Amino acid sequence: MSAKRSTDTGRDSVAVLGLGPMGRALAGAFVAAGHPTTVWNRSAGKADELVARGATLAADPAEAAEAADLIVVCVLDYDAVQDILDGAADRLAGRTVVNLTADTPARARSMAEWAAKRDAAYLDGAIMTPTITIGGDDAVVLYSGPQDVYDAARPALAALGGTATFLGEDPGRAAAYDVALLDLFWTTVYGYMHAIALARTEGVTAEDLLPYSAGIVALVNSVMTPEYVRQIDERRFDPDTDSAIRSQAATLRHIVQAGRDRGLDVGMQEAALRLVAQVIAEGHGDSGFERVIEAIERPAPAAG
Amino acid sequence: MSAKRSTDTGRDSVAVLGLGPMGRALAGAFVAAGHPTTVWNRSAGKADELVARGATLAADPAEAAEAADLIVVCVLDYDAVQDILDGAADRLAGRTVVNLTADTPARARSMAEWAAKRDAAYLDGAIMTPTITIGGDDAVVLYSGPQDVYDAARPALAALGGTATFLGEDPGRAAAYDVALLDLFWTTVYGYMHAIALARTEGVTAEDLLPYSAGIVALVNSVMTPEYVRQIDERRFDPDTDSAIRSQAATLRHIVQAGRDRGLDVGMQEAALRLVAQVIAEGHGDSGFERVIEAIERPAPAAG
Repeated sequence: MSAKRSTDTGRDSVAVLGLGPMGRALAGAFVAAGHPTTVWNRSAGKADELVARGATLAADPAEAAEAADLIVVCVLDYDAVQDILDGAADRLAGRTVVNLTADTPARARSMAEWAAKRDAAYLDGAIMTPTITIGGDDAVVLYSGPQDVYDAARPALAALGGTATFLGEDPGRAAAYDVALLDLFWTTVYGYMHAIALARTEGVTAEDLLPYSAGIVALVNSVMTPEYVRQIDERRFDPDTDSAIRSQAATLRHIVQAGRDRGLDVGMQEAALRLVAQVIAEGHGDSGFERVIEAIERPAPAAG
Repeated sequence: MSAKRSTDTGRDSVAVLGLGPMGRALAGAFVAAGHPTTVWNRSAGKADELVARGATLAADPAEAAEAADLIVVCVLDYDAVQDILDGAADRLAGRTVVNLTADTPARARSMAEWAAKRDAAYLDGAIMTPTITIGGDDAVVLYSGPQDVYDAARPALAALGGTATFLGEDPGRAAAYDVALLDLFWTTVYGYMHAIALARTEGVTAEDLLPYSAGIVALVNSVMTPEYVRQIDERRFDPDTDSAIRSQAATLRHIVQAGRDRGLDVGMQEAALRLVAQVIAEGHGDSGFERVIEAIERPAPAAG
């Protein structure tokens, strides 16, 4: 961090580029922690409350970057990141870019290479908790990139609160966690919405279902014990005498049939059934559900 | 219940037809609670441990039904139930059939009609918890059918332990809960396996992921508050300024792209993306995730 840009309080100056809900939460946390904070957003009006709290509004990304030791970017995707940083490319040398935008691991690595060519330090991060948590105890943010860059940025990033975890030097690693965890979150949430839609066709409300649906979600965590998860990592796909994937196929067929009977979209459920059917077709009907990992990894040509 | 068949302990006699893992757990719980218990299974050898504990093995479903007040059936699906009960059809009059097999609500209603024609009382049930819970405090079983039949069967069904909930007289209602909750459970579990497969392609193990993935699953229950769920029931699909479905589409595209980059099956994720894209195409990109319910209910022609 450049001492020149840091304030006499010793706190690094920060620029936050992108003031969507998460960008505003991040900027607000830096302001609250006493960091000189410059903000910028493509469309106007998003910065008003932050400016009222002491943030400085920059006219463009270059002006924002110029003012800061640490340049935090949190926007829709890396296309947007690239657009924004292109506009500040000649101001990045000697500064640190912390990219908290979600995208794929491959794009995180490309972005790290791009930043290196501009002599910028680069950290890739993934915010695992909702905007409301930012700056408080419940925030969880993952980082990856060079250890020394992380160590230098750490005091400023502490403003975001909660738990910060450094995952290692591969800049794609935070994105790897992020994309996998978002996969889990959204599959579950859309599956939940499908369950509600299906229940509704039978006159069962989401509120009727809630005591049980909350229990079902909690049950998933009970099933996924450390021991079970290690078994999956070791690819010990033993027969499951208690819940063989063969009987799960019957269950999925009931779900698909019930959905079709009521004219619902059953695309997610059919896709799951195809995976399960592939496991059975390959002779592993006695396995537990975790064997679908093999079908996911080697899609059948028809399911391709 | 026929007093003739009940024992001098006052406990109803029970037949358990089907001795898969759940059938054995059910029979074991009836035996443990002191009910005269007759068991039958299509293939031999499954009853040995139960017989050692005091159960009686019947030669066929008719013999088992003959011996019991309460005939409990728990097999793969209703095709199997029908096969088994066809073999005992002339012994069902005056007895109660408790069908704990999972299938669709429509089939539960058909089965209730079939039983009524044989002058059998009929309860449809859904077991919401794993075999290990049966007979203990954690068991959750849902029932639907005539109230008087449920009241009469209740003392015997108490042997299964835990929480028994009567959902009403529509015999399809337990199946409606069941199919919706199984939808939620399996979509989540297979989504979890996909997340693990995706993380693995980046060298992140399921064990690495577990502290975060457990948090993500728990987060779903935090999001699905009673208030949120009521809002869904009332179809108040307000704009979500914190997490608009438009940005969820970007996230899903990253997930699909990351999966494709690594040669994984992404069928479930593409199906979710189609629903989200439909919501956006219909002009509701500002809505929260719950608006996918509308897309699920009115599948676009292309999405079938």
